[in-house]
Amino acid sequence: MLAAMCRFVAYLGEPITLDSLLLRPANSLVHQSFDAKEFRLRVNGDGFGVAWYVAGYEGSPVRVRTVPPAWNNQNLRSLPPAMRSDCILAHVRAASPGLPVVETNCHPFMHERFAFCHNGGIGDFARARRALLRDLPDAIYDGIEGTTDSELLFAIFLDEWEGRREGDPGDAMAAALVATIKRTVAVAKGEPSYLNLCVTDGERVACTRYSNDPTGAMATLYYHEGRRYVCEGDSCHMVDPGSGATTAIVASEPLSEDAGWEAVPANHVGLIREDRTASAWAIE
Amino acid sequence: MLAAMCRFVAYLGEPITLDSLLLRPANSLVHQSFDAKEFRLRVNGDGFGVAWYVAGYEGSPVRVRTVPPAWNNQNLRSLPPAMRSDCILAHVRAASPGLPVVETNCHPFMHERFAFCHNGGIGDFARARRALLRDLPDAIYDGIEGTTDSELLFAIFLDEWEGRREGDPGDAMAAALVATIKRTVAVAKGEPSYLNLCVTDGERVACTRYSNDPTGAMATLYYHEGRRYVCEGDSCHMVDPGSGATTAIVASEPLSEDAGWEAVPANHVGLIREDRTASAWAIE
Amino acid sequence: MLAAMCRFVAYLGEPITLDSLLLRPANSLVHQSFDAKEFRLRVNGDGFGVAWYVAGYEGSPVRVRTVPPAWNNQNLRSLPPAMRSDCILAHVRAASPGLPVVETNCHPFMHERFAFCHNGGIGDFARARRALLRDLPDAIYDGIEGTTDSELLFAIFLDEWEGRREGDPGDAMAAALVATIKRTVAVAKGEPSYLNLCVTDGERVACTRYSNDPTGAMATLYYHEGRRYVCEGDSCHMVDPGSGATTAIVASEPLSEDAGWEAVPANHVGLIREDRTASAWAIE
Amino acid sequence: MLAAMCRFVAYLGEPITLDSLLLRPANSLVHQSFDAKEFRLRVNGDGFGVAWYVAGYEGSPVRVRTVPPAWNNQNLRSLPPAMRSDCILAHVRAASPGLPVVETNCHPFMHERFAFCHNGGIGDFARARRALLRDLPDAIYDGIEGTTDSELLFAIFLDEWEGRREGDPGDAMAAALVATIKRTVAVAKGEPSYLNLCVTDGERVACTRYSNDPTGAMATLYYHEGRRYVCEGDSCHMVDPGSGATTAIVASEPLSEDAGWEAVPANHVGLIREDRTASAWAIE
Repeated sequence: MLAAMCRFVAYLGEPITLDSLLLRPANSLVHQSFDAKEFRLRVNGDGFGVAWYVAGYEGSPVRVRTVPPAWNNQNLRSLPPAMRSDCILAHVRAASPGLPVVETNCHPFMHERFAFCHNGGIGDFARARRALLRDLPDAIYDGIEGTTDSELLFAIFLDEWEGRREGDPGDAMAAALVATIKRTVAVAKGEPSYLNLCVTDGERVACTRYSNDPTGAMATLYYHEGRRYVCEGDSCHMVDPGSGATTAIVASEPLSEDAGWEAVPANHVGLIREDRTASAWAIE
Repeated sequence: MLAAMCRFVAYLGEPITLDSLLLRPANSLVHQSFDAKEFRLRVNGDGFGVAWYVAGYEGSPVRVRTVPPAWNNQNLRSLPPAMRSDCILAHVRAASPGLPVVETNCHPFMHERFAFCHNGGIGDFARARRALLRDLPDAIYDGIEGTTDSELLFAIFLDEWEGRREGDPGDAMAAALVATIKRTVAVAKGEPSYLNLCVTDGERVACTRYSNDPTGAMATLYYHEGRRYVCEGDSCHMVDPGSGATTAIVASEPLSEDAGWEAVPANHVGLIREDRTASAWAIE
Repeated sequence: MLAAMCRFVAYLGEPITLDSLLLRPANSLVHQSFDAKEFRLRVNGDGFGVAWYVAGYEGSPVRVRTVPPAWNNQNLRSLPPAMRSDCILAHVRAASPGLPVVETNCHPFMHERFAFCHNGGIGDFARARRALLRDLPDAIYDGIEGTTDSELLFAIFLDEWEGRREGDPGDAMAAALVATIKRTVAVAKGEPSYLNLCVTDGERVACTRYSNDPTGAMATLYYHEGRRYVCEGDSCHMVDPGSGATTAIVASEPLSEDAGWEAVPANHVGLIREDRTASAWAIE
Repeated sequence: MLAAMCRFVAYLGEPITLDSLLLRPANSLVHQSFDAKEFRLRVNGDGFGVAWYVAGYEGSPVRVRTVPPAWNNQNLRSLPPAMRSDCILAHVRAASPGLPVVETNCHPFMHERFAFCHNGGIGDFARARRALLRDLPDAIYDGIEGTTDSELLFAIFLDEWEGRREGDPGDAMAAALVATIKRTVAVAKGEPSYLNLCVTDGERVACTRYSNDPTGAMATLYYHEGRRYVCEGDSCHMVDPGSGATTAIVASEPLSEDAGWEAVPANHVGLIREDRTASAWAIE
C-alpha cells in the first residue's frame, strides 16, 4: 500500500510567477493539497514548501516551508503572484504515519544548488532507516535536519552524486537518482517502496516514477512541455504543446485540463536538460 | 451553498476520556477532520479545539486549540487518553473563505462557564457583521478576540442570555440560542444562514440545527443517548441506547456505527438538562 | 508606561537585499527581536513581518509574516539574502498584554500599495477601541483582519488618506499620519498613547515619533541617509552619509555603529520623498 | 561557553496545580522564558513543554509542547490552573545555534513512564553526535523523533537504565544519569559539555548539575523542600521549608523569594525518592 502520498510539481522554462503553478490552475498544487484527484485519500495537509531560483543570485534557491496547510496560508497570497522564476519545485505533504509534522520534515530539501522532493515512501522504513544512514559519509549525514525517509533519500542522492560530479550534470543527476533507488531497495526489503523523486539544480530537472510493489501499484507522474505555460484568469494552458519545447512541467497530477499532459511510464527516469531537451528511460 | 463546514461533538454524561470522542471511534472527530462523511468537501483542517470541564474545578473549562490540523497533532496523543470529563465540547474547523486561520478563530469559544461552537455560516457575513456587532453591549463586544461569524454568534448568545439568566438555566440557554438565530437572520438577509450551534455550561447542553436556505439545504446533526459510551479497542458504542439515559452525545456525524444515532429534525433546538432528560422543539 | 514595544525598520533607496536590514547588521532587526538595546524589556518575540516592493510588479508589496520569533525562523535564512528591493518595511512585535499573538496581528499591515507598522500603543485601548472603530467607513472597517490597536491605526490612516489623495502623495501620507494621531488621542484619553507610526507606498516613506505621555516618555526613532547602505561580512555602514542622499533608513534603533544615525525629535513627523529628499516637522 | 541555556523545573510532592510552577510565582517558569535571571542571554523563547502525571492513569505522563514562546500561549491560560498533579516536569527552551526550533525538539522527552529534560549542551555536538548514536540499540535509536543533543542524552539514559532496571528504581535512575554523563563526555571531547539533566518516573526525581568546563562555568540548579508549595495570589512559598519534607522542587532558578532554595553543588547528582527523602552526592 502506498504509505505517504504527497503531490509535487517541478518547472523549468520561461520565467513564470509562482502562482501559475501554486494557485491559478484549476488543479493547482494548493488545490491538490485539499482535493487531490488521483489518490483515494485526497488530503495533503501536513506541510507545504516551495523552492525557486532567483535570476542573478548564485546561492541556494529561496525556500519557504510551512507546517499549516497551504490552502489557507496568508503568506501564500502575496508571494506567489510577485515571484518570478525559470525553475521552481513545490510540494504538499501527506505525512507517513508516525513521521512528525514539523517544518524540518517539509519538502523541498536543499543543499547548495540542489532542491529535492519525494512522493511515496521507503518500504518498512523504520527497519531500513538505520542501515541506510550508516552508509552515509559524515558530511552528508550531518546535514540531515529532520527525520523523514524523503530527506534520507536526498542524502543518499547527494552521496551518489558526489561520485558522478565529473560528468555531464544532467546525466549525473539522473544516474544518481537511479542509484539512490537501487541502494534504497537493496536495503529496504519486505514492504514495497514508492519512489517518485525529483531533483533540480536550477538548470536541469530529473525525476523518477518508481515502485517495486509486486501489484504494480505506483504513484502517478505527468510530463508537459511546450513554448510557455500561461494563465489567463484562472485558466492555464501550455502554449504550443509538444515539439521545440522551451518550457517543461513535471507534476504528480496535471495542473490544468489542456491537452499534452503525458503520463511518465512506470519505473522510468526522466531528464530535462539545460537546453530543455527531454528524455526518459527505463530504470533497470 | 453551505459556506463553512466544520464538525463538532458535545458530550454530557458518565465521565469518559477525551479519546473516546476524539480518537477511538471509527468516525471520531479527528477522523472527520480529514475524511468527513456527510459533506462533499471532506477536509476540516483549519483548526481544532476541545473544551472540557474538570471535576471540582470552578473556573472555565479547560481549552486546547491548535491551528495545525488535528490529525497529526502530537499533543493530541497524550492528552486525550488521560483526561476524563463528564462534559466535553470539541470542534474541527473548515474556515469560510476569507476568514483567517488563526488560533483566536478556532472553536470552542468560552466565557466563564460557557463553551460554544458553530457549524455553518452567517449569510453574507461581510455585510451583516458590522450591524450585528453594533448591537452588542461593550462588555460583550470587548470580549471578542477573533474575527469569525461563529464567535460573533457566541457574543449574541451571551447578550441574549443576560436577559434570561433569572430563569431555569437550561431553558435560558435554549431560548438564548433561538433568540441568537432570530436576531442574526433578521440582519443577515440575502444569502441563507446555516446555524448549527451548540453551547454548554458543563451541566447542560443546548444545540440547534437550523438554516433558512430556501432549498432546505442544512448541515446534519445527530443525537445519541444511553447509559454510557464505551470504547473497546477502537470499537465504540453506547451501552443501553435509548430510554433512561445518563449519557448523551450530540454530533455533526455519528461517531460510531452502533444503532441509536438519530438525526435532529430540521430547524429544531434540543436541550439536555442537568438530569440528562432531553427534549427538542421546532424553532418558530 | 509604554505598553507594547516592537521594533521596526523602513528602507528607501538603492536596491539592497533584505538581509542587509534583517540579519547582517550587528544590531539587525532580528537581533533586536531577542536583544533590543533601547528598551528595558528586550524581547520582541511575538511575531515578525517584512514587506518589500518587487521591481516591475504593480500589486501590493510581498509580505511574509510569522508568529514564531524571527530569530530561529528557517524561512528567514534563504529569503533575505536573495530578495532585493528598493523599498522595505520590517517589524518585530512585542504584543501588548491581552492582544493575541496570531498571524493576523503581525505587522506590517497592507492595503493596495501601502504597508504600515507601529511601535507603541493606544492609551487605554480597550476603552477607546470601539469608538475609534465606529468612525470608520464600511469599506475600511471590513478590511480589518486582526484585533490590534496597530491595525486600527492603519485603518484610521487609510480613512484620513482618502480625503487627501488628490494632493502630493508624500504630503498626503505625512498629513494623514498626523491626522491619525490627532483623531486617536482625541478619543483615547486617560492613559498616554505612544504612536511611532511608519507608512510607505513603495516610493515614499512617512514616519512619526509621538507620545502624549506627560512625563515625556517616548519610544526612540532614528534616521540615517547617504549614498547606499552596504554590508561586508556582518559589518554594515552607510556610504557617504549625509547630504545628497539616495538612500534613507528609518529605524527604532540604529542597525549599525557607523556615524550618521540621528534621533528623530520628539513629536515630529518625517517624510522621505520619491526623489529621496527628506524633511521633518513638529506635530502641532 | 554555555551553548544552550534553557530553564526547567521538576516537582514531586503534594498535588498542586500546574500554574503554581508555570505562572503564579514571581519568577515562574514562564516568566523565566522571557526574563531569566541567572543568565546573560535572558530569553528562552524557542519552545515550551510540560509533562505531568495524572492520578490513576497508568500511561505516560500527559505532555503539551509548543514552539511559540510560552509567554503568550493562550492554551497556557486555561490548562495550568485546572490541572493538578503530584509530579510535574516543565521546560522552556533556548535552542543551541543550528538546532531546529520544531515541536519534536521541545522538552520534556518521554518514554513510557519517564519524562526527561536538559539544560546545557554536549560539547562539539556536531562531531560527537554520530558516535553517540552509533552505540544505541535499535529499539532506543528508533524512538528518537528530533535532532537535539538533549533527546540523544535521554536515549543514552534509557540505554543505561536498561542494565540497571533490576535494582531500586531511584538508585537506578540516578546511576543511569551519571553513566549518561560519563558516556557522553568520553566521546564529546574538545569543547566542554554542560549537562544539567533531570528525569522522573512519576514517583522519583533524579537530577544532575554538571559541566567539565575547565573554567568551572556551569548552569545553576536549586533545590527546595518542605511540607507543600502554596500560592496566594501571585505570592508563592514553601510551607515549613526544610526537614520532614513531603514536597520537593528542583529548578534552574528559584521560582519565588522565600527562604530555603539551596544551590545544588557543582558536579553532583541528586535524588528524591518515593518517600520524599532526598540525597545528593558527587559525580566522580
